[in-house]
Amino acid sequence: MLCDIDISLSTLEIPQPKRLAVLGVGLLGASVLRAARARLSNIELSAWSRSAASRDAVRDVAKVHENVADAIRGADCVVLAGPVDALPSLLEAIKPALSPEVWVTDVGSTKRGVHAAAQAILTHPGRFIGGHPMAGSERGGAAEGRADLLLGRPCIITCDESTDADLPDKATALWSGLGSRVVRLTPAAHDEAVAAISHLPHATACALAHLLSSRQPRLDLAAGGLRDTTRVAAGDPALWIPILLENADHLIPLLSALEQSSADLRAILTARDTKALGAYLEKSRGFRQGLDRP
Amino acid sequence: MLCDIDISLSTLEIPQPKRLAVLGVGLLGASVLRAARARLSNIELSAWSRSAASRDAVRDVAKVHENVADAIRGADCVVLAGPVDALPSLLEAIKPALSPEVWVTDVGSTKRGVHAAAQAILTHPGRFIGGHPMAGSERGGAAEGRADLLLGRPCIITCDESTDADLPDKATALWSGLGSRVVRLTPAAHDEAVAAISHLPHATACALAHLLSSRQPRLDLAAGGLRDTTRVAAGDPALWIPILLENADHLIPLLSALEQSSADLRAILTARDTKALGAYLEKSRGFRQGLDRP
Repeated sequence: MLCDIDISLSTLEIPQPKRLAVLGVGLLGASVLRAARARLSNIELSAWSRSAASRDAVRDVAKVHENVADAIRGADCVVLAGPVDALPSLLEAIKPALSPEVWVTDVGSTKRGVHAAAQAILTHPGRFIGGHPMAGSERGGAAEGRADLLLGRPCIITCDESTDADLPDKATALWSGLGSRVVRLTPAAHDEAVAAISHLPHATACALAHLLSSRQPRLDLAAGGLRDTTRVAAGDPALWIPILLENADHLIPLLSALEQSSADLRAILTARDTKALGAYLEKSRGFRQGLDRP
Repeated sequence: MLCDIDISLSTLEIPQPKRLAVLGVGLLGASVLRAARARLSNIELSAWSRSAASRDAVRDVAKVHENVADAIRGADCVVLAGPVDALPSLLEAIKPALSPEVWVTDVGSTKRGVHAAAQAILTHPGRFIGGHPMAGSERGGAAEGRADLLLGRPCIITCDESTDADLPDKATALWSGLGSRVVRLTPAAHDEAVAAISHLPHATACALAHLLSSRQPRLDLAAGGLRDTTRVAAGDPALWIPILLENADHLIPLLSALEQSSADLRAILTARDTKALGAYLEKSRGFRQGLDRP
């Protein structure tokens, strides 16, 4: 079942999970747990993390476990919240203990890869549906998790041809229950969309930061513009390496287009073309102001 | 006298202006007036703006005038707070009424141009010293002026060979009095420094926004990264056109370097070189984290 339709009204009647297991406790995993504790009544929460510090960070809201099988025992929904490149091994780890009633989702920033992994690994790949809450922070880690991180933010859910028909509504009910605004896309449409609105801005901020790091600029004089334009470059490379690699086919032509956009601006400046510069800046401004319109 | 020395201790004993005139009332002009009213005792404030709305926006803190000669009558310090390309005509406008005791400064984002204009226009060019508070907002305009906009922010002051020896301390006393942290540079060093830390980030944000404006991206899915990376692109083109043009000689090679930095990242992604991608992202992250260190 492809996720290309909008939220169905029936979602309101879909029950929330009774026992939710979160595997991997970083910023998003911890925020899912905190939001579930804060917003969903009578839910049992369990969590697994490789890191003792991350387990300790969510002990107040979830039962924490040192191995995956214990964490998912009795769960009716499993959320994979590890980095994108850890998702195949998490799918392998849950496979032996997974019964067909349980459904599985994730929080990864790319979606074609995890759907392919679910197809290849799970006995019942129809029990997987992708999830991507569009929320985050350059300050990652379980200790930064917040019950309101997902609140009002888009959460994209993704299905492929094999996804069971009950999952889109179940996933919509879960993420809506955690405070997100759910949007349904296919994995391919997701990866194309986020390449432009998330991975390209990230890559642009990194390209600028990387350049300036070689120039010894006067950071003592910097104002808010430099800070904001480069903010996401402080994100954890361990999370971003697999995201940028997995979505490289979309990102590479966008980076070429960015270089062309910069070259166009450079040509305008070289020609001292006031009128063209005004048109360029007006178009840029119109785009940015559009982001703030409801 | 070149502004290449640090703040002198004697600044504390330099008296503030008794009557300050601000010509041009946008975000910075209004903020200078509000900061002066809030922080400097017994100061008379006068202001001129072409716009009735801008005059009205500061009527509560300054005596407003519809012509420049009235606004600067009796002032011992004149702050030119118009856009960079309006500074020559403001210098022309004040020239007939300017006595040699009065000193003149500005708030423009480029400094070689205004120094050259002061040399060419003023009868006593030694009475001019450049100023550039590193503070602003993509939401400009007199109504946005705030007494705390300059607080704790760097303010660069610039002198050339002809600047009178009393002005660096007087300008330092004024901007420190308004809450800024004063840094002294030559006009050339200023323009080179801000090209990297302000004009390049601005141009980068515009290049990204300009590109995306042609792509119909899913803005309904955007998270904070796109917002922050493009924030300054919402700035007023009328202010930014002359800034980018005046500093084009520094900005053009920096834009070339940005394109190369993006092309380097693209080559790494094309080669699927995980190690090189990690090194690239770590270097970018190190730069950004350095911005948050005191």
